[in-house]
Amino acid sequence: MSLSVAVLGLGLMGGSVALAAKSKGVARSVAGWDPSAKACATALARGLVDRIEVDPEDAVAGADIVVLACPVIQVPEIAIQVGPSCGPGTVVTDLGSTKASIMRGIGPVLAGGATFVGGHPIAGSEKSGCAHSEGGLFEGKLTVVCPGLASEDSIRRIEQFWQSLGSRTIRMDSEEHDRALAATSHLPHLLAFLLAGLPAEKDKAFAGGGFRDTTRIAASDPDLWAGILLDNRSAMMPLIDLIIMKLEQARGVLSDNSKDAAQKLSSILALGHRFRTGLDEARDSRQ
Amino acid sequence: MSLSVAVLGLGLMGGSVALAAKSKGVARSVAGWDPSAKACATALARGLVDRIEVDPEDAVAGADIVVLACPVIQVPEIAIQVGPSCGPGTVVTDLGSTKASIMRGIGPVLAGGATFVGGHPIAGSEKSGCAHSEGGLFEGKLTVVCPGLASEDSIRRIEQFWQSLGSRTIRMDSEEHDRALAATSHLPHLLAFLLAGLPAEKDKAFAGGGFRDTTRIAASDPDLWAGILLDNRSAMMPLIDLIIMKLEQARGVLSDNSKDAAQKLSSILALGHRFRTGLDEARDSRQ
Repeated sequence: MSLSVAVLGLGLMGGSVALAAKSKGVARSVAGWDPSAKACATALARGLVDRIEVDPEDAVAGADIVVLACPVIQVPEIAIQVGPSCGPGTVVTDLGSTKASIMRGIGPVLAGGATFVGGHPIAGSEKSGCAHSEGGLFEGKLTVVCPGLASEDSIRRIEQFWQSLGSRTIRMDSEEHDRALAATSHLPHLLAFLLAGLPAEKDKAFAGGGFRDTTRIAASDPDLWAGILLDNRSAMMPLIDLIIMKLEQARGVLSDNSKDAAQKLSSILALGHRFRTGLDEARDSRQ
Repeated sequence: MSLSVAVLGLGLMGGSVALAAKSKGVARSVAGWDPSAKACATALARGLVDRIEVDPEDAVAGADIVVLACPVIQVPEIAIQVGPSCGPGTVVTDLGSTKASIMRGIGPVLAGGATFVGGHPIAGSEKSGCAHSEGGLFEGKLTVVCPGLASEDSIRRIEQFWQSLGSRTIRMDSEEHDRALAATSHLPHLLAFLLAGLPAEKDKAFAGGGFRDTTRIAASDPDLWAGILLDNRSAMMPLIDLIIMKLEQARGVLSDNSKDAAQKLSSILALGHRFRTGLDEARDSRQ
């Protein structure tokens, strides 16, 4: 594969796609665009892109693959804006953490004939900005591809693109993606942010490895995550209700403090313990 | 320092204290006791202890320092059991994640004259068992020392013991310790367990780095943590109420979805973002 790639949005994720595509020889050229001049300058200086365009329409001209790497709420609008400047053979994809509203907002074919296929690489970092881009970010990770109503040929091109960046791929319905990711990513982010907001300033010294790990992703960009959580609110609301119910159940056991409280509480905790240790076993057996 | 040390409870924490004390030349001999024959055999085979005793009373005989490394709910009962077998110059300490009930349950002087000083090294692992012990576990970490009504000399001996294992120390009231640790350790553990129990089995593939980190400590022992949470229930209950309130606040913004929802939600998330990024800065400036 030697593709002409355009990356719209040069943050950590867009920058990492550009870097991976160039360093693995997947792209013969990468054009970049970002509203921030600083991001553009950094991307050029780090050699993530071959050229920067002031207008996104110019960045997508002649591209085989266009990667929308902007915050989720901006994805449909930018796709629609650049559609007419893409060739009819262009496949447009994205990196958004939510998929249903993006698929609904764009549809399978853009004005001008380019195809849209949704994408979400389950990889990232709590860091922001293309200065932190990593060419190996997608190595061994899983990328969800949401076909929508795109042609088999377009879907395959996006799958091959991700595979050539080192990722495994799975095809999935966008609603199903959003439901699964609400539990495995979006609620964990919300809880990490809330949890990290609870200790008093003077308690900082007592934040050990457990606190650091459970709240690592609270160092992520709050604006970006407010957008993701709002976009996926139909899956988030019942999950928030569920975790509140679980917290109330645990609180009930603590408050009763009956003779079998330890056993009751341990059973509540054991459910998560089983899932989490199963996760490590699944990974260990794959290695 | 070349001490005779007894370690009662040979799990990951007790085993790590024994290993650190021996490998750093802090202890000239370490006697161990554990109700589990397997733990005793592993500790002997790994050379964590010099001898194993069948009765805890025999393990503490002649010890300068006795380390109670059993689950928090058993600490007072074992301290009281072995007190009369300790010399009047012995200092007894513990590793418990809660301190107030332990300090209340034991008091400053045991029958026979040994002194009790509470301790809590803020270090650990989600793994269990002395097979996972690490001699460097306390290196650069902070250990809370709760003096209670112990003599200055006894307090200093426990502080020096921890410092010689590589730890910093801080003196603290036991109630204040339990309040601070509820926010920085106990609630994070409860949330990690609950969060890890939410995804469906088929969602395992979508658990990325964020999920793995936020739930790492859910691989900890549920029985052990049920005991800690119950023991610290007076600090835990208002904190659970607080996190439920924060979740309801976030849910309210998602459900309203008003024009300024993104901004409102971002402000809620920003609080935790600031504390968490501040934590990394504090660590970076110390290194």
